[in-house]
Amino acid sequence: MSYAELEALGRKLESIDHAIAILSADEATNMPVGGGEKRAESVSYLHGLRHETATAPQIADWIASAEAEDLSDDEKLGLREFTRVYTNATCLPADFVRRKSQAEMRSEQLWRDLRAKNDWAGFAPALEGVVALAREEARMRADVLGLAPYDALMEQFDPGNRMADVAPVLDKLKAFLVDFVPAAIEAQQRRHAARPLKTVQGPFPMERQRELGLSMMQALGFDFTHGRLDVSHHPFCGGVPTDVRMTTRYRTDDFLTALMGVLHETGHALYEQGLPKGLSHLAVGQARGMAMHESQSLFVEQQLAHAPQFWQWAMPIVSRHLGEDALAGWDIEDVVAAVNKVERGFIRVDADEVTYPLHIILRFELEQALIGGDLEVADLPEAWDAKMTEYLGLSTIDNPRDGPMQDVHWPAGAFGYFPSYTLGAMIAAQQWATIEASQPDVLEHITRGNFSTVNQWRSDNIWTEASRHSTPDLLQRATGKTLDPEIFIAHLKKRYG
Amino acid sequence: MSYAELEALGRKLESIDHAIAILSADEATNMPVGGGEKRAESVSYLHGLRHETATAPQIADWIASAEAEDLSDDEKLGLREFTRVYTNATCLPADFVRRKSQAEMRSEQLWRDLRAKNDWAGFAPALEGVVALAREEARMRADVLGLAPYDALMEQFDPGNRMADVAPVLDKLKAFLVDFVPAAIEAQQRRHAARPLKTVQGPFPMERQRELGLSMMQALGFDFTHGRLDVSHHPFCGGVPTDVRMTTRYRTDDFLTALMGVLHETGHALYEQGLPKGLSHLAVGQARGMAMHESQSLFVEQQLAHAPQFWQWAMPIVSRHLGEDALAGWDIEDVVAAVNKVERGFIRVDADEVTYPLHIILRFELEQALIGGDLEVADLPEAWDAKMTEYLGLSTIDNPRDGPMQDVHWPAGAFGYFPSYTLGAMIAAQQWATIEASQPDVLEHITRGNFSTVNQWRSDNIWTEASRHSTPDLLQRATGKTLDPEIFIAHLKKRYG
Repeated sequence: MSYAELEALGRKLESIDHAIAILSADEATNMPVGGGEKRAESVSYLHGLRHETATAPQIADWIASAEAEDLSDDEKLGLREFTRVYTNATCLPADFVRRKSQAEMRSEQLWRDLRAKNDWAGFAPALEGVVALAREEARMRADVLGLAPYDALMEQFDPGNRMADVAPVLDKLKAFLVDFVPAAIEAQQRRHAARPLKTVQGPFPMERQRELGLSMMQALGFDFTHGRLDVSHHPFCGGVPTDVRMTTRYRTDDFLTALMGVLHETGHALYEQGLPKGLSHLAVGQARGMAMHESQSLFVEQQLAHAPQFWQWAMPIVSRHLGEDALAGWDIEDVVAAVNKVERGFIRVDADEVTYPLHIILRFELEQALIGGDLEVADLPEAWDAKMTEYLGLSTIDNPRDGPMQDVHWPAGAFGYFPSYTLGAMIAAQQWATIEASQPDVLEHITRGNFSTVNQWRSDNIWTEASRHSTPDLLQRATGKTLDPEIFIAHLKKRYG
Repeated sequence: MSYAELEALGRKLESIDHAIAILSADEATNMPVGGGEKRAESVSYLHGLRHETATAPQIADWIASAEAEDLSDDEKLGLREFTRVYTNATCLPADFVRRKSQAEMRSEQLWRDLRAKNDWAGFAPALEGVVALAREEARMRADVLGLAPYDALMEQFDPGNRMADVAPVLDKLKAFLVDFVPAAIEAQQRRHAARPLKTVQGPFPMERQRELGLSMMQALGFDFTHGRLDVSHHPFCGGVPTDVRMTTRYRTDDFLTALMGVLHETGHALYEQGLPKGLSHLAVGQARGMAMHESQSLFVEQQLAHAPQFWQWAMPIVSRHLGEDALAGWDIEDVVAAVNKVERGFIRVDADEVTYPLHIILRFELEQALIGGDLEVADLPEAWDAKMTEYLGLSTIDNPRDGPMQDVHWPAGAFGYFPSYTLGAMIAAQQWATIEASQPDVLEHITRGNFSTVNQWRSDNIWTEASRHSTPDLLQRATGKTLDPEIFIAHLKKRYG
């Protein structure tokens, strides 16, 4: 039974992935500083072992004979996804993978150093090398997969996503946002004139913020028998589905940053905890990809926790944990105004729901040009500045640190990944619209802190589906239509118009 | 270069061991309850991988060719220890190892269940199976190693320890203790009559106890850049030398249990942190064995932290962290009386410094008889009861739960391990005596909380020596003599006489 061989292999890989995931979470949350070198050796060994195990030549034979076996429909889906992952993992020559990973590691290290020094000239040659390798990778993957080069890169993050579908959607969104951002800022100024933004007081002791976060996680459906919340410098959601490791970090002068972070990561965590338990050892039983994962975190963060109805339920809980005095008269309206604040800025990760997609579209357009050979790294600062000026009215020409040097993705060789963020935001909006259509009283449930109906829909339509379908197919099956930019646009208009 | 091959293999094994150690520490301190099944799968996979990697047949060839290479003296020691470990790891047939490990797992599970029910009759057949396999293992190991069967088992825990040396030492100690225990209890009664034992008040908040423990660890030389202190149900010292994971547990009505636990585990931790850093990937660079490890924890716990001079320094620190009120007049004398309390009891792990060796000697004698075939499991309760009555005046005949069912060691197949505990206590006393002879002012240092001179001696003579020498050779080189029971006896007489 070759399918059984593949399942046994899947269990091995799951055991290795488990070790890597927990060691990595421990590294970020618990490891003393002197433990880093030996930890890196251990994790790097496990990554090597994982690659070797997942790409062994006999797997191709097992796949071939499994295809001739009498498989159930579920097994057929499992085999298809196994094959897809194996093909993607083995289609690059080992020597190329080594060269690429070394170049990316050096480039990322250099980026960390030179970004702080705002030294584009020093960094550009390393990025040129990384772009050259990314072009080569895209060509090789494209040949094997029968896809266009940039599609072959997107395929690594969101299986099934294609330029032909994604580009028109993001073009429509761009056309809308370039005019909508100034309008939304103007509307916001009018609102702030009528009810000025208040500054929150604090201090908010870390332990109370933590308890607030835990109680929100609980209410949202986080299963504490299969996960925990810790502290790390960069918040993340890691671990494994049976042991999800979420983190946040706290500032005593502000509770919203940590809390919104907790809500975002809870969205990721619910997806992981909601995956089908019996399939966790197979690719088909794992989360679908970056855009779908981001849709789950942004569903909680933006669709739920940016809505005034959410804060009708949440604000009394915030007061109970942090104390009325520390909140100094902050009310539901004040929190809603704070979480929905729109502001033009240079930095993607600091951007809000409205301006964020323009940051993404800028990168999406530039990285297509880079991969396609229509743009060279030497011309990147000017190209970045031109788009930034056009989309957000901000010039970065004198400040590459806040321009093309601001993100780790390109220095580390991740091309094709940026669209996932905004696709995730749009998918979240489309899921919410579908839920609202079938559950007319859903907002009333939210005002009472009852998330069971939205969770049930997401469990049925997203979580338990795992990787049975491609990203666009999964969305279509869940919402009855392909990705529709008008839904996200309507959402933005309603909230910020 | 075959020695270089062995070093590369050592680095692989170190990476696997690192993963297992951190995953296990995380399991005991952080893992949510639902994470257990997948964690067990991952760790069990890594154990299998470790065994496979460490016992690969080509290693024998590398060892053989390394022997012909021109090696430095250090490399020769490294090769000798590598060979010893490889021989011990490969001398049992794989099929036997599987049978044994399955029988032990079942027996241990049964023991957990039936001990609670005090059901010896139900448990005995499983233990018979485990003893039969232990006899078989001892014979097979003995053949390969050219040792007596019980020596071949002790060799797994304390390389170089032999019955011919250990038995006379423990016999002398037994002869002394059988009379000394009643004398010590009588002397204690006189002391308590003059100054009654006081009950401590509390409550002692967990966070304050934790800070007290951390400050003691710091003073004793624990390196917090290479380790941390957490909480677990059963205290342990795990992790790896660059990232030592120590745990304790707290009761708010008593601070001594947690603190003495912290001091004990700190002794283990200092040994791990003090091992030679450049050799951590080779067996020769790792800690010498169970008795030597226990000597390091008992050095801190019994030689240092049972001494009145230690509490002259420590008591003000305890007061500072826990508050004078909570201590309710407890003074140095009260703490010293509490930590040095002597009491006959059924349970080994609850025993004190004076009665503990008799528990060990009882097991040492019985397990020799079990392995040698002079005693059968069916006769164990009577044999246990007879010795317990002779050594400590306590009968266990009606209560197997507190007799031969009290420890996990035999149910889990660990024979030859018990002596390590008491050998460790004796080695600790012998190390202290050697230090005191060469550092006449060492007790004055202790009263000022200066542990640098004892640490320097232990670093030079024990920690940095790692596994370069056998257990008895290491002791002889450090203290100038073989294990001398009179030193430990003198220590007990002085403290409890």
